[in-house]
Amino acid sequence: MPDTVPADSVGLVSPNTLHIPTPITLESGRSLAHYDLIYETYGVLNSDASNAILICHALSGDHHAAGYHSMKDKKPGWWDGYIGPGKTIDTNYFFVVSMNNIGGCAGSSGPKSIDPETGKPYGPDFPIVTVLDWVTTQAELADHLNIKQWAAVIGGSLGGMQAMQWAISYPERLRNVIIIAAAPKLSAQNIAFNEVARTAIKSDPDFHNGHYDEHNTLPRQGLGLARMLGHITYLSDQAMGEKFGRELRHGSLNYGYDVEFQIESYLRYQSESFVEHFDANTYLLMTKALDYFDPAAKFDDDLAKTVESITAKCLVISFTTDWRFSPERSHEIVNALLIAKKEVSYAEIEANQGHDAFLMPISRYQEIFKAYMNRIASEGKQS
Amino acid sequence: MPDTVPADSVGLVSPNTLHIPTPITLESGRSLAHYDLIYETYGVLNSDASNAILICHALSGDHHAAGYHSMKDKKPGWWDGYIGPGKTIDTNYFFVVSMNNIGGCAGSSGPKSIDPETGKPYGPDFPIVTVLDWVTTQAELADHLNIKQWAAVIGGSLGGMQAMQWAISYPERLRNVIIIAAAPKLSAQNIAFNEVARTAIKSDPDFHNGHYDEHNTLPRQGLGLARMLGHITYLSDQAMGEKFGRELRHGSLNYGYDVEFQIESYLRYQSESFVEHFDANTYLLMTKALDYFDPAAKFDDDLAKTVESITAKCLVISFTTDWRFSPERSHEIVNALLIAKKEVSYAEIEANQGHDAFLMPISRYQEIFKAYMNRIASEGKQS
Repeated sequence: MPDTVPADSVGLVSPNTLHIPTPITLESGRSLAHYDLIYETYGVLNSDASNAILICHALSGDHHAAGYHSMKDKKPGWWDGYIGPGKTIDTNYFFVVSMNNIGGCAGSSGPKSIDPETGKPYGPDFPIVTVLDWVTTQAELADHLNIKQWAAVIGGSLGGMQAMQWAISYPERLRNVIIIAAAPKLSAQNIAFNEVARTAIKSDPDFHNGHYDEHNTLPRQGLGLARMLGHITYLSDQAMGEKFGRELRHGSLNYGYDVEFQIESYLRYQSESFVEHFDANTYLLMTKALDYFDPAAKFDDDLAKTVESITAKCLVISFTTDWRFSPERSHEIVNALLIAKKEVSYAEIEANQGHDAFLMPISRYQEIFKAYMNRIASEGKQS
Repeated sequence: MPDTVPADSVGLVSPNTLHIPTPITLESGRSLAHYDLIYETYGVLNSDASNAILICHALSGDHHAAGYHSMKDKKPGWWDGYIGPGKTIDTNYFFVVSMNNIGGCAGSSGPKSIDPETGKPYGPDFPIVTVLDWVTTQAELADHLNIKQWAAVIGGSLGGMQAMQWAISYPERLRNVIIIAAAPKLSAQNIAFNEVARTAIKSDPDFHNGHYDEHNTLPRQGLGLARMLGHITYLSDQAMGEKFGRELRHGSLNYGYDVEFQIESYLRYQSESFVEHFDANTYLLMTKALDYFDPAAKFDDDLAKTVESITAKCLVISFTTDWRFSPERSHEIVNALLIAKKEVSYAEIEANQGHDAFLMPISRYQEIFKAYMNRIASEGKQS
């Protein structure tokens, strides 16, 4: 981090861990006898607990959404550009909660945790978790924090799916929901990309059926491949073209299999740094949670019927060059909300960054998002 | 094949091999002392050799474009729907030539051939080949067949790039060029997908730096992954959605890592059958040829200047849902040809099959293509 904390940063933050001693039965039918939830908070909860915001993270995210863990940190939390004093999600007013989902690898119970039945890490035996399971555990955290109703639940990508699930499953527990760069379910193509990523991980001989820890190995190649592939789907063709084009790494063609184009070098670097801090079993779990998300499946595939229960005001945001979850996928959500006569605002943001746009500073996105948050804050102050 | 040869089939065909005893210096600077070209022909060359058509194949294609090799064949050649008596490329009039490119694995010199310097198969030491190298060797074949000028050179995808290169490099040797579902060069995203495929192959421990034959292994996982990924880019999101949607393999969710959705099953099957008949070193070479294709690089990146030499009449065809080489990429070619004042027709075909549409029977595509071929035939008969 910089020598001094930037004025608009939440500053130095520390995570908290909540131990839940009671069992949870997951959507799969399996259960956890007890589990931990790691989370961070930014800002101050007001006396009537009416200013609380829940941030839901995406595939490779975690609870560290804003600020710095130490003065040595090179980078702040993953959504620091949007969370802080005076920022879009203004911590001068809001109390922001960000939790690592179970199945994760950043401190909440997951494959690296000890399985009480065996006394050894779960590894690949950690149960499959779903978006609904995450929402259930996030509600446990809300109970612990005495937050009866979120001012808003907010998420992008897989986080947007959690936000949507909150609005459907716990209508009385949130006043607003903000669903960014998401979809009501994966398409066959989305699932196909996930299956390639999983196959890459599982076919790495260092994966050892998920027991790589016991073998003191890491499925570096497989997880690296999964990350390279993911990265392609997060960026737009345009963004890659503008950033790398066909620029050569060494100025001239060398007609071999070493890195020839800058884009190859970038992907290799990205994947190498990723595999050092992200767990392969968690990656598998996260892709399965994506695949399984389909709230309308329980409502005869009728999305309008699915969102019938929602009472929150809804903001849906998409990005023009996002081809992972294109604007058409957000239209599906918006149309269902309109058919169900819900209060919904929709913004389609012109942005060339593809799916990753939801993490980036884009002025129209920031303005619309901020105006919406300001409305939430002013309603909170009036009540 | 059916019990009897279908009336509109070229029937039973056999490949021919041409041995070129003279050395070729490749674009990379490396050379082959001598090499073989395997090819098939359909129809009869007329007395003035004015009815010859060259078909250029794509990444995983070969010389077997039409007809059957034996009565036991389950499937005909890869473009059988378009080549035959009365078909789009009508063998009642045209003499069609289809050659396996060097670096391939279907009979032309490639990684499986014997390196005269070592007496052992080239394997990974077969030189990198480019689209221009292929065109050069295709011209050798034309010389051998006494074809001074092709009535047309035709190709889809990587084959379209060869057709384009023919028109640029040998303007006097073709009267027409048909460039289908192609691009004037790969985008950064295209290269990125190729790099993921290559990384998958090279990181398979059974790859042995390309010497898998010597180890009696095959990089099945890596090549299978490459094929799975390729397959996703060949199909449109729409086509996958219509074909598979979120249909479950076993009717209900099983919350595990076995095949859950039909699309997963399909991809696994496709990749398993592919690895049995396609060579991994060839796959690497083909992706590099794609990456390197960029004829405008020698003309200050000015595509209009690049096509200045073309004298052939041009037909460019694209497909609306092709996201590998989208219609915009064909527009680049068409615009350059228009700026250079060339004779060009362009058709953008409404089709939901994505990139693979170029191989499929789509009525408007067939009509436009056939009308163009009929015009070529009638001009040939008049001259």
